[in-house]
Amino acid sequence: MLYAPERILVAPSGFKESLSAIEVADAIAAGIRRVLPGSRVDTFPVPDGGEGTVDILAQRRGAVTHTETVTGPVGQKVQATWVEFPESGGGVMEMASCAGLSLVPSDMRDPGATTTFGVGELINIMIERGCSKIVVGCGDSGTSDGGAGALEALGVIALDKKGEKVERGGSNLVHAKSLDTSSMNPRLRDVSITMACNRHNVLTGKRGVARVFGPQKGATKAQVKELAEGLSCWADLLVDAFAPIADLHKGPGSGASGGLGAGLMALGAEAGERFDVLLEQLPAERDLDELIATADLVITAEGAIDFQTPRGKVPAEIARRCQATGVPVMGLAGSLGEGAPSVHDVGIGAVQSIMTIPMELEDAVRDGRDLLVDASERALRLLQLGCTVAGRQENKLRVRYAGISA
Amino acid sequence: MLYAPERILVAPSGFKESLSAIEVADAIAAGIRRVLPGSRVDTFPVPDGGEGTVDILAQRRGAVTHTETVTGPVGQKVQATWVEFPESGGGVMEMASCAGLSLVPSDMRDPGATTTFGVGELINIMIERGCSKIVVGCGDSGTSDGGAGALEALGVIALDKKGEKVERGGSNLVHAKSLDTSSMNPRLRDVSITMACNRHNVLTGKRGVARVFGPQKGATKAQVKELAEGLSCWADLLVDAFAPIADLHKGPGSGASGGLGAGLMALGAEAGERFDVLLEQLPAERDLDELIATADLVITAEGAIDFQTPRGKVPAEIARRCQATGVPVMGLAGSLGEGAPSVHDVGIGAVQSIMTIPMELEDAVRDGRDLLVDASERALRLLQLGCTVAGRQENKLRVRYAGISA
Repeated sequence: MLYAPERILVAPSGFKESLSAIEVADAIAAGIRRVLPGSRVDTFPVPDGGEGTVDILAQRRGAVTHTETVTGPVGQKVQATWVEFPESGGGVMEMASCAGLSLVPSDMRDPGATTTFGVGELINIMIERGCSKIVVGCGDSGTSDGGAGALEALGVIALDKKGEKVERGGSNLVHAKSLDTSSMNPRLRDVSITMACNRHNVLTGKRGVARVFGPQKGATKAQVKELAEGLSCWADLLVDAFAPIADLHKGPGSGASGGLGAGLMALGAEAGERFDVLLEQLPAERDLDELIATADLVITAEGAIDFQTPRGKVPAEIARRCQATGVPVMGLAGSLGEGAPSVHDVGIGAVQSIMTIPMELEDAVRDGRDLLVDASERALRLLQLGCTVAGRQENKLRVRYAGISA
Repeated sequence: MLYAPERILVAPSGFKESLSAIEVADAIAAGIRRVLPGSRVDTFPVPDGGEGTVDILAQRRGAVTHTETVTGPVGQKVQATWVEFPESGGGVMEMASCAGLSLVPSDMRDPGATTTFGVGELINIMIERGCSKIVVGCGDSGTSDGGAGALEALGVIALDKKGEKVERGGSNLVHAKSLDTSSMNPRLRDVSITMACNRHNVLTGKRGVARVFGPQKGATKAQVKELAEGLSCWADLLVDAFAPIADLHKGPGSGASGGLGAGLMALGAEAGERFDVLLEQLPAERDLDELIATADLVITAEGAIDFQTPRGKVPAEIARRCQATGVPVMGLAGSLGEGAPSVHDVGIGAVQSIMTIPMELEDAVRDGRDLLVDASERALRLLQLGCTVAGRQENKLRVRYAGISA
């Protein structure tokens, strides 16, 4: 196959509740090898701040991970992991490992009640262990407490009008009237915190987190309204107490992880564009943009490709980075939902689903890896068929323009 | 897109219980036009003898169809259609419109009880209407009566040892001891009957119809054994009575449509290879092999592509005919079942399913057309991506071999 791609870059996201980004990349590579065993395949699982981010960084840098017991989003004990880069004093955590939606039992999905307390606990632990540059991966959160829980664990206590501690959970934020910062972790001053987040998420207003993400975290219409009000009051209180430079109401990233963004920004954290922040943590010798520049084909993937994908999801980010060289981009997905063709507008030339027959979601999740290997093979075969068509066309055109009858 | 296919031939089968071959071809063409509006698309719905065959022939020849009331497989009245070509004395029917599996209610799927009586009735009607060259399309049958019902309608009556008429249905064939041909339709002598069938289907032995198709028509293990015995006795009886040239037990096509093949062959009918017989009925000016020879890409399709597809189904036949010119062949399917990759061995380069998300079979059937249009678009986009990759590769290789740094 003269014109087949010689170098293929596989740069996927994870498939939520089925496969990690590392597993997705491996499965796609296995499918490619069935069709083009002679091509070079580079895998680059893309960290997005959400679940799997710590694993990707640890694997790619050969770094040590630590597991800590912290308070989960509904008060249970959970095991949260973070990765340490001792040489630079760096450490990266996923807020989702402390307060993610997957840690909220489906019968307890009340975003007015869940807390980011564990996020603050984990930051304390990381500081204790000597981290001076902390990255907080945002994404996949199950909370909407404006980071009040995290701040409580860091020693910033919300009090009601009677001067009593406000209960945890976003729905109680309306009662917060003052902050007690007397027991705040003094070492926070010497630590830089950067959030790796989607900077499109803001705390309040029409595009605020309560309205955009509340319903998918399980909030009713009334709860959404209550949360929106509470988060707005909470931001006012934080501004009064800390006079931060950043706009906690509508500044970029203020709404990250149910408002954890605003909470940490009040303490001086930066809200960084998640892909920039996280790719900076990866080894320089295998730079994503360099791999893209030398690839003949880039394959990205996401659990569900749909109308949300162009709004800053991994496939859209990969396609954006591919525009510089114009390398063709293919997207694989567990499912192709409503609005999937919108990804063509952001530069993903073609998409493929892992589905082959009518099946239940749980079967698709269970057989995810095998289905993905097969889908990768199918997509590559269709691509290869295109290479064959092109080779024949080129030959035909050459004959035609040479004025020779075939 | 310099190297995109200029001429695409769409030559599909129908999707059982969802879309006719004509509808499938139209849907695929609509998907192609979304991606390559400038390409020429020829549609060639492929008749296979089963459901939809008469419609394809009528459409393609602009011929008249007739609808007749005949006896269905479980004794009900059914409307059977056939197409007449008066200029040649020709007429084509589908046995499935008289005795097809879809005419057998799912709670009555007993292949020992169903009858081909209506097939004989329709042949009588066609003769009455002046047809002298009758083609019987085989496929999608719901019967296993060795054609005994059809012969009864044509005046060949099976009698038991007491000389009484044997009840209809394959499970009663064991009782047939003699044939009364005294009331046989005398005009059968002046008529040629050709079956369009899968000549791999034989009546008896290990590969006999009772064993191969009985279970999918609803037969239990005991019924399969009973049917196999009955069909074997029935063939002996037919040989005794008519001394046909053809081997009714294991001759090619003897097992067509639950043994209707053997029954009609006893009366002198020929068992023709279905695609050859049916394509001969189509207008010569749009010959399938000529369309293939001028196509840059051929797309075929089947409701379910699986391990059975290479065994003489439409996509395999199309791929076989494409071998002469080596034109790339793509296969679209409602579902990709077990063994689907085996189609690559018979020349189908790549396959694509209409599935995008976990869904129920009934939803897939209901939304069949929309899903197929989308699947066609997706497959063409993947193919087009391959054309782009190839164009870039060609350019890269040209630069490389010219010794010029890019």
